[in-house]
Amino acid sequence: MALPDAMRAAHVPGPGPADSICWGTLPVPVPGPTDVLVRVRAVAADPVDTFVRSGAYPTPMPTPFVIGRDLVGEVAATGPGAAGHTPGQAVWCNSLGHAGRQGSFAEYAVVAADRLYPAPDGIDPDDLVAAAHPAATAWLALFRHGRLSAGQHVYVGGGGGNVGSAAVALAAGAGARVVSTARPGDHDRLRDLGAAEVVDHRAPDLADRLRRAAPGGFDVHLDTSGRGGLADAVGLLAHGGRLVAMAGMDRTPALPVGRLYTRDASIVGFALSNASTTDLAAAADGVVRLLTGTAWRPRIADRLPLSRAAEAHRRLESGGLRGRLVLHP
Amino acid sequence: MALPDAMRAAHVPGPGPADSICWGTLPVPVPGPTDVLVRVRAVAADPVDTFVRSGAYPTPMPTPFVIGRDLVGEVAATGPGAAGHTPGQAVWCNSLGHAGRQGSFAEYAVVAADRLYPAPDGIDPDDLVAAAHPAATAWLALFRHGRLSAGQHVYVGGGGGNVGSAAVALAAGAGARVVSTARPGDHDRLRDLGAAEVVDHRAPDLADRLRRAAPGGFDVHLDTSGRGGLADAVGLLAHGGRLVAMAGMDRTPALPVGRLYTRDASIVGFALSNASTTDLAAAADGVVRLLTGTAWRPRIADRLPLSRAAEAHRRLESGGLRGRLVLHP
Repeated sequence: MALPDAMRAAHVPGPGPADSICWGTLPVPVPGPTDVLVRVRAVAADPVDTFVRSGAYPTPMPTPFVIGRDLVGEVAATGPGAAGHTPGQAVWCNSLGHAGRQGSFAEYAVVAADRLYPAPDGIDPDDLVAAAHPAATAWLALFRHGRLSAGQHVYVGGGGGNVGSAAVALAAGAGARVVSTARPGDHDRLRDLGAAEVVDHRAPDLADRLRRAAPGGFDVHLDTSGRGGLADAVGLLAHGGRLVAMAGMDRTPALPVGRLYTRDASIVGFALSNASTTDLAAAADGVVRLLTGTAWRPRIADRLPLSRAAEAHRRLESGGLRGRLVLHP
Repeated sequence: MALPDAMRAAHVPGPGPADSICWGTLPVPVPGPTDVLVRVRAVAADPVDTFVRSGAYPTPMPTPFVIGRDLVGEVAATGPGAAGHTPGQAVWCNSLGHAGRQGSFAEYAVVAADRLYPAPDGIDPDDLVAAAHPAATAWLALFRHGRLSAGQHVYVGGGGGNVGSAAVALAAGAGARVVSTARPGDHDRLRDLGAAEVVDHRAPDLADRLRRAAPGGFDVHLDTSGRGGLADAVGLLAHGGRLVAMAGMDRTPALPVGRLYTRDASIVGFALSNASTTDLAAAADGVVRLLTGTAWRPRIADRLPLSRAAEAHRRLESGGLRGRLVLHP
């Protein structure tokens, strides 16, 4: 099938506000020797996309810059060194749009072959693209940075969100004992996903209830909101426990140093943007197994045409969304 | 040689002040099947000994409790399962006096065979016992918890102290590039031990100078004093860097969370008291190589008879000591 020369894309002239996003026409990009050109079917808008677009997360940005990190689509053309990818194949990616790579919010996108994964059969493409970022984040937080293993105790703060619910399902599936916080309306869902205990995050005696839920402490602590304090969190860690820090960009909570080091505990920071292609591929495998092997599905707040990308960014920035925004070219 | 029934020992009836230390008579302890009875030749007084004695560091404590963690001595008797240790052999240990073990401040002490190490030939026993705690701490901080490897950049805050100077010599010997802070009078010594750069810790532009000294950031950050803030420290870390937290018991510095996680950096806490026998043995090997293979020697502030153990604790608690207190039975 012949490729067009031009495509529609959501792009910006450089770092700037959501209103600077232009839905316009750009040349269809040409894949390099080890790249794949993907015809985009769906994308999801990430909070981190807004940090890249605004400049809050500084990263090399070719201009005009196509925004967006995640996509599902199908292989349209391949470079000679992009072995294993064939035209028409259903694929997905979650690491475009930063570190000098153009983004996914376009009709076509170039993806390095080792950042592109086969889409599993029988999974809704909207679910896949909505899962791509939060489930990979949860996988890397638990297993790569938190070094969680079977039989350990894990705390998931904010189990009602997409990262949190994915973490609950992934950790339970790996044989860990999961304690999570969430609003009461989410408790049943989290128990169904494998949480051993779910506590209302607004409970006045929250720390005491968590201590009773894991008397030996938590081996891994994930606070998906980044809003929790460190005093209780560190106090609830097991000997040698890992508190994974991945949110709360502008926060500077007080760290009880003695409580940390007398229990040989660590605070392990990570951002998905820094993940190596090897780690991303391992996480992608975890995402696919989560979708194909469990009842977990991402929560999708809304679906929009890709031409309304600026609106999607404004909605992310105004906060309060429950779930992901999925957009279609 | 026949063993006496009784010995002199510095002991306490339970947690309490330095003045509760009694220099009195106790039965010579009997080694268990895999233990060694050591005739003590020298001990060193650690700050952590005062935390155990006061109760600030809670740990199981048989009573009357013999204080003290470190010793050098010679094998007096062995249990049947204490293979590899022979009477008269010169030995050392740095993990008595906590977690249910009696201490070292006595004429005889029982040591589990796997916590006892051969003393190297040609090393002054006072240097060995004074090195036992700070050099093992530096080794574990750098290599076990900081995961330092050759070619990496390491910051050692407080290079003039015994932990700091040992860390400088150990890191330089491992092929790392070492930047340290110290008062000017210690700069030459630290350069001789292998520091690439030494900066006055009171320099008003300290953070800028450290940034220029390691433009790519520090892979490992050790602040031996525990008094530094986290904002500069985290800001000076390399991508993936490890800040080792091991001092500053009662401090609660503000942690810049975003700065930590956007560079995939960690804060790794540890206390020597938590080290496994395997880690302690690896560190002991590092201590011996430091003493036998480099010019590093611990600074000894004073030598006292063991009968003045209470005075040693009072001097540690009043602060300001430059170097170790070594005591002799």
